[in-house]
Parts: sequence; C-alpha cells; structure tokens
Amino acid sequence: MRIETVTQELSLKRSVDSGTEQQRAAVQQIIRTVRSDGDAALLAYTRQFDGAELSDMRVTPEEIAEAYQAFPKEMAEVIKEAAGNISLFHQKQLRQTWTYTDQNGTMLGQKMTPLDSAGVYVPGGTAAYPSSVLMNVLPAKVAGVKRIVMVSPPGSDGRLPAGVLVAADIAGVEEIYKVGGAQAVAALAYGTETIEPVDKITGPGNIYVALAKREVFGDVDIDMIAGPSEIVVLADETAYPAEVAADLLSQAEHDPRASSVLVTPSRKLAEETAAEVEKQLKSLPREEIARKAIEDYSAIYVTKDMQEAVSVVNQLAPEHLEIMTEGALSIVENIRHAGAIFIGRFSSEPIGDYFAGPNHVLPTNGTARFSSPLNVDDFMKKSSLIMYSETAFRENADKVAAFARLEGLEAHARAVEARKEQ
Amino acid sequence: MRIETVTQELSLKRSVDSGTEQQRAAVQQIIRTVRSDGDAALLAYTRQFDGAELSDMRVTPEEIAEAYQAFPKEMAEVIKEAAGNISLFHQKQLRQTWTYTDQNGTMLGQKMTPLDSAGVYVPGGTAAYPSSVLMNVLPAKVAGVKRIVMVSPPGSDGRLPAGVLVAADIAGVEEIYKVGGAQAVAALAYGTETIEPVDKITGPGNIYVALAKREVFGDVDIDMIAGPSEIVVLADETAYPAEVAADLLSQAEHDPRASSVLVTPSRKLAEETAAEVEKQLKSLPREEIARKAIEDYSAIYVTKDMQEAVSVVNQLAPEHLEIMTEGALSIVENIRHAGAIFIGRFSSEPIGDYFAGPNHVLPTNGTARFSSPLNVDDFMKKSSLIMYSETAFRENADKVAAFARLEGLEAHARAVEARKEQ
Repeated sequence: MRIETVTQELSLKRSVDSGTEQQRAAVQQIIRTVRSDGDAALLAYTRQFDGAELSDMRVTPEEIAEAYQAFPKEMAEVIKEAAGNISLFHQKQLRQTWTYTDQNGTMLGQKMTPLDSAGVYVPGGTAAYPSSVLMNVLPAKVAGVKRIVMVSPPGSDGRLPAGVLVAADIAGVEEIYKVGGAQAVAALAYGTETIEPVDKITGPGNIYVALAKREVFGDVDIDMIAGPSEIVVLADETAYPAEVAADLLSQAEHDPRASSVLVTPSRKLAEETAAEVEKQLKSLPREEIARKAIEDYSAIYVTKDMQEAVSVVNQLAPEHLEIMTEGALSIVENIRHAGAIFIGRFSSEPIGDYFAGPNHVLPTNGTARFSSPLNVDDFMKKSSLIMYSETAFRENADKVAAFARLEGLEAHARAVEARKEQ
Repeated sequence: MRIETVTQELSLKRSVDSGTEQQRAAVQQIIRTVRSDGDAALLAYTRQFDGAELSDMRVTPEEIAEAYQAFPKEMAEVIKEAAGNISLFHQKQLRQTWTYTDQNGTMLGQKMTPLDSAGVYVPGGTAAYPSSVLMNVLPAKVAGVKRIVMVSPPGSDGRLPAGVLVAADIAGVEEIYKVGGAQAVAALAYGTETIEPVDKITGPGNIYVALAKREVFGDVDIDMIAGPSEIVVLADETAYPAEVAADLLSQAEHDPRASSVLVTPSRKLAEETAAEVEKQLKSLPREEIARKAIEDYSAIYVTKDMQEAVSVVNQLAPEHLEIMTEGALSIVENIRHAGAIFIGRFSSEPIGDYFAGPNHVLPTNGTARFSSPLNVDDFMKKSSLIMYSETAFRENADKVAAFARLEGLEAHARAVEARKEQ
C-alpha cells in the first residue's frame, strides 16, 4: 500500500461513473417504452435482461413463506434485532409539526408530513443485500410513509433471494415487484397498470439504475447517486495496525474502485499497517477486488501532526470515517465533512453497516461536503404555516404593499390592500 | 375565468420547461468553456449576453455605498424589518447535534454541521427581486454558512440594481459578482481564478440557469428547479370574492404560465370571484401576462363539499395554498401536500412573499408531494456518530460477523473479529 507524506495537494484518484452517451440513450429509450407500454414493457425487459419469464411481477405471500423456510432461523433473528436498532435510531430523528404565536397573535410554523409513498430499489445478484433493504425501508417506515414499494430484478428462475424477501418482510414491506434496472425506476416514477407511481425512489443500483434515477429526478424525488465505497481511518500510534488494516480491507472488498485511506501522524503505524494490509489481503476470498482497490484508489498519508491529519480528513470528506486515536471523541468537533463517524476501537465500520442503528446509505465521492446519510427527513416534507392576525396585518400591510410595488408587482400590492377596504 | 364542476380527473394544464436539445448543448458548451478558460470566459460571456464590458466582476464597497444612496431610505428600513422576521422564523428551524447513550454505554447520534459555502443566483432585469436575495441568503446565514456568494448578471451599464445590492448587504453577503446565466452557475460549481467554488447553489433563473444547475448537480448540491408560480385558494361562502380574486391575480401577474386556482363548494363564490377577476384584471399594469395565466393555466373548481375540495387541493399539491373558510385552522391537518399554507383572511399570499418570515422559495409543479420550502436544513448536513462500547461490541460481534458473511463480505466479518483477539 502506497505511503505518502502530505505536502500540498493530495493525490487520490476518485472514480465517478457518469455513464456513456450510449448508456444514457438506452436508459431514455427504456423509460419511454415503459411509459408507453406499461407492464408489457416491464415483462419484456425482464425476459431480455434477467432471463426470467414472468406472468405476474408481484411477490406473493407464498413466496415470502418459502423464503422464511429457506433462510437460516438464527439469521432472521439477527436481522430482526438489527431492524430494531435501526428503527430506534431513526425514531430519534422524527420531528413534529411546530408553531409559535407572536405578541401580535400571528401564528407561524412548519407542518411535518410524511411522503405518501416511497420506492426502494434493491440490486440483484451478489449485491442483493438484506442490510440494504433495512437501511432504505426503515427510515421511510419511521417517517410514517404509508405505501412502501420494493423492486428488485429476479434471477433467471424468476425468484428473489430469500434473504432479501425475509428482510423486506421484517421491515414491513407489503408490496414487492420482481423487476429491476432502468425499467423498474421508470415504473416507480410513472406507473404502469400494476405498479402505482411513488413520490421518491431510493436505493443503490448499477449504472443503468443510476442514470434512470437522474432522468426521472424532478418528476419524483431521488436519493443521492452513490459512487464506490470509501473509508478513511484517522489514527495515531495507539491504534492496532491489524485492526486498522482489517477495516481498510472491509471497504476495499466492496469494489475494485473502492477507496481505503489511512491518515496518521505516525510513520510507524503507517508502515505496520501497510505490512498488515499486504498480509491480510492474501487470505481474503475477494482478494482480487480488494487488491485493485488498494492499489488504484487507496493511500496512507503521513502528516506532521494530528491537526494536519484532521485537515486532510476534511479535504477528503469521506463516506466513512473511523477515529482511532487517544481522545478520539474530542476530535469529532473538528470534523466538518464525513457521512458517518466511527469513534474508538470498538466502532469498526461493519458494526455500523449492519447493526448499530445509524444508516449505511451515506454520501460518497466527497459529497459529504453537502449531503447527509439517508434519514427520516428524506421521507418527510415541510409545509410553512402562516396565520397572520388582523393586528399584524393592519400594522404591516402598507410595508408589504410598498415592497411589492418596489418589485413592480402591482397585483401583489392590491391583494394586500383589498383587505384594508372591508 | 373557467368554472368547472369537479367530477373525476382534473383538467389543469401545467407547464414545465425542460429546455430544448439545443439549449442543453449550449449550456454544456458554456460550462466546458468556463472550466477551461475561467475568468476570461466569464468576462466574454458577460460581454456577449449582458452587453457589459467589465474588467473586474466583484462588486466593490463603493458600489454598495452608491446603492444605498440611490435607494429610498424607507424601503431599506422595510427590507431590514423583513430580514429580521425571516431570520427569526429560520432560527426556529435550527437543529443541534444530538447524542444518546444506551445502557451498554454505546453512544449514537447525529452531528449537525453547516455547509462551508453557498452560492445564490439572483436573476437580472425585471426579475431582480430584493426579496429573493433575503429568502435565499438568510437560511444559509442562519445555518451558519461562513461563505455566501451572490452572483447576478449586470445591466449593459455594468451595474446591479440598487435594491439587490442593498438587500444583499442587509442579509450580510460580502462576496458579490456581476456575472449571470449558465456561466455563473459553472463558476460557482467549479471555480475560476476569481471565484472559489461553493458547495451548494440556490436561487431562481431562466431556462439556461435551470439547465446549468441540473448539469452541475452531484458535483455540488442545488435547490429544486422552480417552475411557474402557483396559487390554490380553498374557500367557502364566508370568503370575500374581491379578496379571493385579488390573491389569484397576485400570482397570475408573475408569468403567463402561472396557475391560479380556486377550489370551493360554493357556486356563488365561484361565480362572484370569476366576475371579480375579470373586473380587477382590466386595471392591472401587467394585465396581459395575468390574463394569459388566467386563461391558459387557471380554473375554478366547484366541489360537492369541503371534503372533496380538500381532496382536490391534495391532488394539486400547490406551491401556495390559502384557506379562507369557516374554521380554516381545523382544515390544515387534512392538507397533505402544499409548499406554504396561508390560513385565514389576513394571510394574503404577498404577506408571505415579503414579510411574515417563512420562505418564499417553495416547491412548484406538484413537487410539494415530496419537497419542502427552502429552509435551514438545506444548508446543513448531518454526520452519523457511532461510539460503540466494548460491552456492546462483545455482545454483538458474532452477530455482525454472521450478517456480513451472509452477504458474502468476509473482510467485513474479519474486521469485527480482529477486535476479539486482543
């Protein structure tokens, strides 16, 4: 693993796949076809892309029951416990409608309302993660979204993985369709005979899914489009190299374009961690993927002190940040940009991926500068409340009319003045 | 004005300008040029599109002083008072970092951090509204954003309107550039020699500005892309037709594609309001614009009762909703989708546009189904906090490792297990 002394500019390759013109055109074509042909288009694409011949896309209660049969009981229990933790953490985020009334009797406030509906995309194949189901569905559930729809591409046998169905059932999803790709996104955005449209689409997917989400954005809401996973470990000489290395590799195994970075003022830790990474890599089942990520998109930065290390972290604005230093908690207030901050030795990143409660859908590719983990606010909207009192009105009507006229909007001024006459 | 009895589907034309292929290509070209040529490109486009020959884009303290000289003192006072009200309402939205510690000693929470920087676009010409400056800048200011940059296209004399500069100064903007269009958006997103890039761009603009925001979305955050203004008035026979009509026209004067709708169970109110609209239209300075909006995008819907009226409102999901009925406040809880809700006779919509405190940047075109008025949250981001205790770790490590292995992620499992060894 590459060790660099931080001088000026950080040299870290980042990978954003924004798709080719051809892919974009293909996605636009799929969306048009779904909008015009509805279910027939969905079934045809599922035949073409997933090799599955379906007559009905909706998952039946029998399929859910079969999934439970096929799934290890003790794992269903772990999923339930994780779901409980995730729900609890997200409940703490719930905000209530608030109002206040000033001395003039004017009431102002914000009304909080859950979205009517949300659609969750779950990728197929090896990326069909039960944990993603929980992380996308439960914030919407906690927000109070009544209708939650899940879509996922079936295998060529026309089925969804048992783990995904069990997680969906535990999370309380009652409407699941076996359809994936850009066609599923189009169906969620615009509806078909079978699938009613939703207000927001979340969840990860391949480049076609990402491009489709970008296309429908505005007609429905979407979550951020995720890039490859990233971890930054901020550590000093009190950290254990074997643990740091293991955490770096846990992100590296996700994707050959994943990025794992150690930032430390300790050259000793840097060198020992690099050696540990090499040692641990050799025995990983996904060695090839992880090795590419480590070689191409990862680095160890040695800084002159902890202050410079924190500044490097803020420059990177990582998706995941682990702090394994003396007095780790006191460093948190200086972190300006990070999706999730894991504090101390026992907060290994997979704890957060699966179990602790906070969401694992996090801003990637530096977008932690301006965006947040998936959360309950993402499934609610605010409406401003304005109940102006007569007293306040009589006091301020002329000012408002003057302001409107200043902007050349005479009808605005007259709307206010219309009240003065009665 | 068209009166319709609500039966099944509402027939209301909506206008979304998503731009032509040609416009999109022009915007992409402008962005590429700004990225490669920086300031030189900005100055050249300003010459080409705004007819202004500038050597320095940055507004000087002298220009601010001149703006105050040229601007009516009493209007500066009104703007100050409005700014105070807007700041106060937005301060109520501010959320603090929170954490909780469970019985195992694990601490979880959300850290709230303002964005480092925000850019506000202010349109030129007749749409250069001082109120927009306040509404876009103050939420960022309240959130704690340190660097707020304003951009606006100059007139051919190379100046910005005095009202815009005064409002910017009152709102506390210290960095203003005389540049507009797609080139200004590109500069805010990617930076030039003079303009440092920002994390988020908000503010209204023409189709080129809207397309440019869409192009840079992802590299920076943007607010929703606004469509033409809309108002829905929900009223019963207790409302005054002259007031309802005046409020409908206050939105209609904005844009020939604006939409003004009355929903009422009272045919009498419907007919009297229609007559009032016609009468008031005739004396409006912007009669032509308002008349087109009323004829093409507006309607009066007569419903069989108030319940059906509420359901029509929810179907429309309007940007502005006025409720002028008996017991207006009790209807609010049944409103599921609206950007801002104006309750009672004295809450004429322009009061909210200028003065009351809530934001006038609101979701248009039905997007109130899933989005919110511009607010303080838009200028902050959350980071999850996870400080797992050793007790919690020892209790749950095996479950997490099992969950990771279920998903085929061996390195995740080993990262957790690495801690068990020491």
